Amino acid sequence: MKITKPTLLVNKEKCLENIRRMADKAKAANAELRPHFKTHHSAEIGEWFRKFGVSKCTASSVTMAQYFAAAGWNDITIAFPYNPLESEDISEIAKTTSLNILIESEESLRLANQLIQNPVGYFLKIDIGTHRTGIDPEKLALIESLVQSSTDKVKFKGFLGHAGHTYYSPKAEIPSIFADSVLILNKLKSKFGGIISYGDTPSCSMIPDLSGVDEIRAGNFVFFDWMQKEIGSCKTEDISVCLASPVVAIHEERDEVVVFGGGVHLSKEGLEENGKKSFGKAVRLTTNGWKSPVIGNVRKISQEHGIVQMPAAEIAKLKLGDLLGILPVHSCMAADLQGHYYSTSGEKILKIIKD
Amino acid sequence: MKITKPTLLVNKEKCLENIRRMADKAKAANAELRPHFKTHHSAEIGEWFRKFGVSKCTASSVTMAQYFAAAGWNDITIAFPYNPLESEDISEIAKTTSLNILIESEESLRLANQLIQNPVGYFLKIDIGTHRTGIDPEKLALIESLVQSSTDKVKFKGFLGHAGHTYYSPKAEIPSIFADSVLILNKLKSKFGGIISYGDTPSCSMIPDLSGVDEIRAGNFVFFDWMQKEIGSCKTEDISVCLASPVVAIHEERDEVVVFGGGVHLSKEGLEENGKKSFGKAVRLTTNGWKSPVIGNVRKISQEHGIVQMPAAEIAKLKLGDLLGILPVHSCMAADLQGHYYSTSGEKILKIIKD
Repeated sequence: MKITKPTLLVNKEKCLENIRRMADKAKAANAELRPHFKTHHSAEIGEWFRKFGVSKCTASSVTMAQYFAAAGWNDITIAFPYNPLESEDISEIAKTTSLNILIESEESLRLANQLIQNPVGYFLKIDIGTHRTGIDPEKLALIESLVQSSTDKVKFKGFLGHAGHTYYSPKAEIPSIFADSVLILNKLKSKFGGIISYGDTPSCSMIPDLSGVDEIRAGNFVFFDWMQKEIGSCKTEDISVCLASPVVAIHEERDEVVVFGGGVHLSKEGLEENGKKSFGKAVRLTTNGWKSPVIGNVRKISQEHGIVQMPAAEIAKLKLGDLLGILPVHSCMAADLQGHYYSTSGEKILKIIKD
Repeated sequence: MKITKPTLLVNKEKCLENIRRMADKAKAANAELRPHFKTHHSAEIGEWFRKFGVSKCTASSVTMAQYFAAAGWNDITIAFPYNPLESEDISEIAKTTSLNILIESEESLRLANQLIQNPVGYFLKIDIGTHRTGIDPEKLALIESLVQSSTDKVKFKGFLGHAGHTYYSPKAEIPSIFADSVLILNKLKSKFGGIISYGDTPSCSMIPDLSGVDEIRAGNFVFFDWMQKEIGSCKTEDISVCLASPVVAIHEERDEVVVFGGGVHLSKEGLEENGKKSFGKAVRLTTNGWKSPVIGNVRKISQEHGIVQMPAAEIAKLKLGDLLGILPVHSCMAADLQGHYYSTSGEKILKIIKD
């Protein structure tokens, strides 16, 4: 493999270790791991989960469910509010696959019953505090009505929550967010039945004991990223993806290096750190991966350019045509932007393509 | 055409009008329009420029230059610092195409001479104030040496500037940024020869008379977007792209609608407005396009979700399964994220694909 342009490198060993850790935790909690595949978008990486006993997965769109169904996954939850406009594709996938959708209103359940032609399961999406989507868990009459509308074709499966607010909460609050979520969801479970599906990488990574949920839907943990490192979900060494980025200009006078690696490779998702933005962390590439110590910061990003601020001593080691590694701020977004990945041992890894 | 998932709609008439306006302005200034094609990424949309006499274009990467060369463009400038690692591909394109690269150091010119096998032109990238890339225009000895190193194989063409700081400057300062840039570049031209290549949509859109430059490289103007509207480059009605986004949840209690249309469709580029973030502006779709009045704001965005804040009266008109239009904050980024577009009259428009 000769890298000539921005290329997302995947360290398979780190991925396997990250999967193993989450699979062990799920097992200890007597929960099933149904990992979210919206992070890696890759049939090949999906296979890496199987050796840990994973046989079900989560997708974030109907298109992604189609892709993983075609790759042999026969039990998929689309963890995104049911989109009535895609009912035909949903019906098609449901012909051969155990498929679950998300419902959060009477109207969406009515439409699902009307428009979906083959049996699917549905989870009620419960708003456990993120206030992005979902049903207020206090609306018991609505929940009861939605559970009771279960039919053989569109069948109630349980309650699904995503504690997305863990992304913005202090580390010390994560245990109570998890505890509150489990309490809310278990109240509903004991009243109405079904299982509890819970996900979000921060709490699933940080909470040692995930007892109280039936299913874990976290996804980002396979790659991790700088955001998760900052949240406290992982160590820098656990991050398993890195964008190899050609150095195209060196500006010693302002401690900057320009890399070919911009918003169309890393996304424009950034973090605020001590009043400064960071769009990725620079690391040194090696012949078979990268070294963990962070040696620079992507301070500005445009469509194809990354502007990396680095100490003079690090800049002095670089020359035009070298490759610099960039650990992404948000690996799910960076992965979505790639046409394919390469493993650190040089094999091309295919993924879903937008065409 | 039946839209079932997030789909970028392109209004061809608006695009043609946007191109016509810029082409007229270039003609009046006796400058050549070499539009940047990194906005639309589409061979078909590239063709729309030809009827306005455009025969040269700009690309932001070697891959994009390959794509447009294959689509029949035989005079292309890659407006990104020369990446020595891609010299083989550059040589290949240069076999059949007049190709220009950007140089900003002696080392990059030395490598270009050493590694590129077929004749290319080079522009010296001058830092006219953005401080992203480019040579300090005061470094005359360096510039002289770089001009004099011109050979038959790697030949000096002129000076190229990108006034990227127009994106962050008050509207009132744009004329002086343009005037300063023209002054800087003309000083170099009169001393060393070559032509002046100038670009950035804000100044090229706002300055009535672009006299003083030989070539205009702006690109975003074909689509425009909410950022350009805010800067003052265009009116809302000039924006020629809109993401058709299925409504998947309605939360009247907090004046929010959830659409299928997130960071993987619009990018995570946002604007700060009165202390609130906006990741796109909601508009009403019609049978053949959209209406200009903004009826809501994308206040939060995640991978697939857009959270749109709207007045209750607008929400009341919506139901699950409707489509809502979203004018992107940054059209170049949103366009990059699509596999294809649709015209407002229902034809599929192909674009470059990441594979």
